[in-house]
Amino acid sequence: MIIAYDRLFDFTYAVFKAIGCSDKHATIATKVLLSADIRGIDSHGVARLTGYVRLWEAGRVNATPDIKIVHETPSTAVVDGDKGLGLVVAPFAMQVAIDKAKIAGTGWVSVKNSNHFGIAGYHAMQALQHDMIGMAMTNASALVAPTFSVERMLGTNPIAVAIPANQQPPFVADFATTTAANGKLEILQRKNADAPLGWVQDKSGEPSTNANELKQGGALLPLGSDREHGSHKGYALGSIVDIFSAVLSGASYGPWAPPFPAYVPMPENMPGEGLGHFFGAMRVDAFRPADEFKSHMDNWIGRFRNAKPASGHDKVLIPGDPEREMEEVRIKKGIPLVDSVVDELKLVGEKWGIELKA
Amino acid sequence: MIIAYDRLFDFTYAVFKAIGCSDKHATIATKVLLSADIRGIDSHGVARLTGYVRLWEAGRVNATPDIKIVHETPSTAVVDGDKGLGLVVAPFAMQVAIDKAKIAGTGWVSVKNSNHFGIAGYHAMQALQHDMIGMAMTNASALVAPTFSVERMLGTNPIAVAIPANQQPPFVADFATTTAANGKLEILQRKNADAPLGWVQDKSGEPSTNANELKQGGALLPLGSDREHGSHKGYALGSIVDIFSAVLSGASYGPWAPPFPAYVPMPENMPGEGLGHFFGAMRVDAFRPADEFKSHMDNWIGRFRNAKPASGHDKVLIPGDPEREMEEVRIKKGIPLVDSVVDELKLVGEKWGIELKA
Repeated sequence: MIIAYDRLFDFTYAVFKAIGCSDKHATIATKVLLSADIRGIDSHGVARLTGYVRLWEAGRVNATPDIKIVHETPSTAVVDGDKGLGLVVAPFAMQVAIDKAKIAGTGWVSVKNSNHFGIAGYHAMQALQHDMIGMAMTNASALVAPTFSVERMLGTNPIAVAIPANQQPPFVADFATTTAANGKLEILQRKNADAPLGWVQDKSGEPSTNANELKQGGALLPLGSDREHGSHKGYALGSIVDIFSAVLSGASYGPWAPPFPAYVPMPENMPGEGLGHFFGAMRVDAFRPADEFKSHMDNWIGRFRNAKPASGHDKVLIPGDPEREMEEVRIKKGIPLVDSVVDELKLVGEKWGIELKA
Repeated sequence: MIIAYDRLFDFTYAVFKAIGCSDKHATIATKVLLSADIRGIDSHGVARLTGYVRLWEAGRVNATPDIKIVHETPSTAVVDGDKGLGLVVAPFAMQVAIDKAKIAGTGWVSVKNSNHFGIAGYHAMQALQHDMIGMAMTNASALVAPTFSVERMLGTNPIAVAIPANQQPPFVADFATTTAANGKLEILQRKNADAPLGWVQDKSGEPSTNANELKQGGALLPLGSDREHGSHKGYALGSIVDIFSAVLSGASYGPWAPPFPAYVPMPENMPGEGLGHFFGAMRVDAFRPADEFKSHMDNWIGRFRNAKPASGHDKVLIPGDPEREMEEVRIKKGIPLVDSVVDELKLVGEKWGIELKA
């Protein structure tokens, strides 16, 4: 099924309204969620809508949160998300970071008591229109084993950084701190295909190509795959995301991060409240005149785009290129949804008489 | 040869004095440089002293720099290093970040017109005594090919993050954004040994195990090694370091970053001044009370240290553990130097009648 963005927007908005979100919150939650589908990151988009609804049904998501700043300095804040949808809490917190940066040069916001916030890249990109560099990261439920361990201790803990240019499109990096995002494994599971070596390990810590290894006690591997190829660096990166997002804010960290599937019980003895995020905004003219910076970014991007390609490749990509190209296509031609997602969406819509129309 | 730290300090200090550094600059340069040897990162320590001297001889390092802030806001600054030793410029800039954080909650400093600054970890760790999280990164001369490219466009561009705890030692991550640091290749070259697949590619972009591949037009690979294992993430990380360090400050970026070996000609049409660095300091009590944060870091570190180890491993490490253990040994037992380094040091000492004594 291929569905136009506006139709999918209407459906998703209606579902968020149905669980009790205000107009404003339903609008922003829909916009954030579908930004993943538009950019081709299908695992984080509308495919997760039913998951959010189940979290709300389980009482783990508050549809009418009182999101507020609970601590601040000129360049920092901690935001309490009041168990709200991360899709709503995150834009609030990113706006706080941007507002701080307007006055102090930079703004840094750590968030507790939140839930999954969609794609990190969306939030980082909010800074671009203000001639700011944006950053976003989040912790997530533990699927990743540290180097030398068999225990799942970290989430896929993504980092996004968006940097404005002038003539060139912006530099937008958005990546899980694992070798492969969990969404890529899910695609292989649906196809009954093997995973490349280096993505997962089995429950004894041995390398595995079984895409279903996580269901059998295995774990995702940090970026780098194994010690010889730098997995201790991916482990460190994922840890930094966890600490900035959750230890700084007072959210629950490491193996205690709350799970996304509502059927998974909450961890015992959680050391903090909910999921955590971390956002940053840096005004580029807090360092040098914005036009000067952006013209050097044009030069940087242009030079890298023209780096000599390896044989078999016609060009070198700039972070953000594939997602932007996908966005151009999907805005015009619509968003493809796999059958299992369509079925789930129809089922959830039926509860409230909301129809999914192509 | 094994040499006591104090003896190596005296020798190194005397060499920095000999090239014209003030007492204060020679002291800090020595302290920063030897922090690498003490922590076991031999490639970045006194083994590079002769390289710094040659840069000074070539007129690329100014021994009496007028280091100053050229732009600032409450939470940011740009520092002009006046072609000084990075070993001296970086501590100045990190102090500016710390001073900004005392007032604004966080401080962020981008540096231009500098040179190599030793190990990133040293600078990040300066924040710890102030109950701050410290960050340090730097660009470097291009040895790394972006994903899908054969051209060297980025340096090994390290990132260091230091996070204070209470009872536990601090979390200190310090890593190149490549699969393997160049120093590890140099060790294999001396042993005439092969490199693991995934560290380097040859001049056509094909995987290679030749540890000398960089001398034959090859390149280091970004963290992740290849596209299937996330090299686009390592490429993005290295790019972010380059942009924060050099495009934000006005230093020379990407393939135009100045080389460390004085015999390598400077790139043509450099778009900025010298090498760039980026430093950050975040007061933890700008987010939550420091004792609360540090006790949760104790809990975080304790939990990760006790994660179940994989078979064949007796424990899970926290970033910074191996370097701290090495430091304890080397402070007591001295610093081992390989013969080639000893010979070079003796040669450089002879110019000024400075003797290297074990």
